Amino acid sequence: MQLVIGNKNYSSWSLRPWLGMKVAGIAFEEILIPLYQSGSKAEILRHSPNGKVPALQDGDLLVWDTLAIAEYLAEKFPDRHLWPQDPAARAIARSVCAEMHSGFTTLRSTCNMDIRASKPVTMTPDLQSDVDRIVAIWTDCRTRFGNGGAFLFDKFSWADAFYAPVVTRFVTYGIAVPGDARRYMDTVLALPPMQEWIAAGKAEPWEIG
Amino acid sequence: MQLVIGNKNYSSWSLRPWLGMKVAGIAFEEILIPLYQSGSKAEILRHSPNGKVPALQDGDLLVWDTLAIAEYLAEKFPDRHLWPQDPAARAIARSVCAEMHSGFTTLRSTCNMDIRASKPVTMTPDLQSDVDRIVAIWTDCRTRFGNGGAFLFDKFSWADAFYAPVVTRFVTYGIAVPGDARRYMDTVLALPPMQEWIAAGKAEPWEIG
Repeated sequence: MQLVIGNKNYSSWSLRPWLGMKVAGIAFEEILIPLYQSGSKAEILRHSPNGKVPALQDGDLLVWDTLAIAEYLAEKFPDRHLWPQDPAARAIARSVCAEMHSGFTTLRSTCNMDIRASKPVTMTPDLQSDVDRIVAIWTDCRTRFGNGGAFLFDKFSWADAFYAPVVTRFVTYGIAVPGDARRYMDTVLALPPMQEWIAAGKAEPWEIG
Repeated sequence: MQLVIGNKNYSSWSLRPWLGMKVAGIAFEEILIPLYQSGSKAEILRHSPNGKVPALQDGDLLVWDTLAIAEYLAEKFPDRHLWPQDPAARAIARSVCAEMHSGFTTLRSTCNMDIRASKPVTMTPDLQSDVDRIVAIWTDCRTRFGNGGAFLFDKFSWADAFYAPVVTRFVTYGIAVPGDARRYMDTVLALPPMQEWIAAGKAEPWEIG
């Protein structure tokens, strides 16, 4: 399998399947296309029909969009338990992933992922509303399904991968969260593949062009 | 089960699970909350933690966001085949649903669903790009997986439900598409539950307030 991703400093959507596959021990070849460069779009279109990353090539089959990739891999590798095993927990995990997929527009537009930067943001009511909702999700998932562990749903799942770019944004933009949320952030940041991604992102030469 | 939806003239995301459940013959109680009224948000928050419709209540379990609801129902009612049975077709169906879920921002922002209206839109390059991509998706799915039938993936699936609001937008805004895409639109519009939804939307008293 080949996972087509953008550069690691900027491409939040690329981080999600990459992190999930790494934590789950699913082998893949990485194809990295730097974003925001002349020719980036054309290069992505060679791999993915909607001109966006990430995309997953598995033999003849090309699966695109992070959520579809997540479902595809969860089905293909059922023993890796990328979704929670309990049906109710799984439904909530999918709900919070889908909410991330279509929502949090203020956070995503004003605080783009930029791992190597440190640029405290001026808080606004709309941004605080997004932050509050994310903290509420983390608290709710860990309270109901966390089983006293470090992740949102007992063991690492797609839900943690989907919120991993949010964790880096909270760091980059100096966004304060309550202690329990901060501990969850530390858990995500300490994952060895997350450390690997962050180090690679910091070492990249490309800027938003 | 109870499906919480917005009003039928405007709420494109509500139409998707409603249509899928109706076509699949899944019984549910409908809870309709008119959008864009004073108190709408508070009323939705009584049902759904992110303050958006749709949401599905199944006993003690509340599932929110259309994509999570789609996956939940496909798992709960496997005999209804809401996703294509072939793994590759299913992966593509999920890809095009996820692309709809996070994309087509020009179409969605300039051509909000407004079933009872008729207001031809001035075409722009960005809007045409969205339209072209949608037509390409419909053509690609039907060519590869349509099996000569009327739907995107042989039998009705979530993919058809996800593009159903696009069909009404193309009608409302007078957006021209090639003949084969027009025939697909007619297939969706002719579904009895789609006719029921459209008639109800046209009869609603509420305006965007």
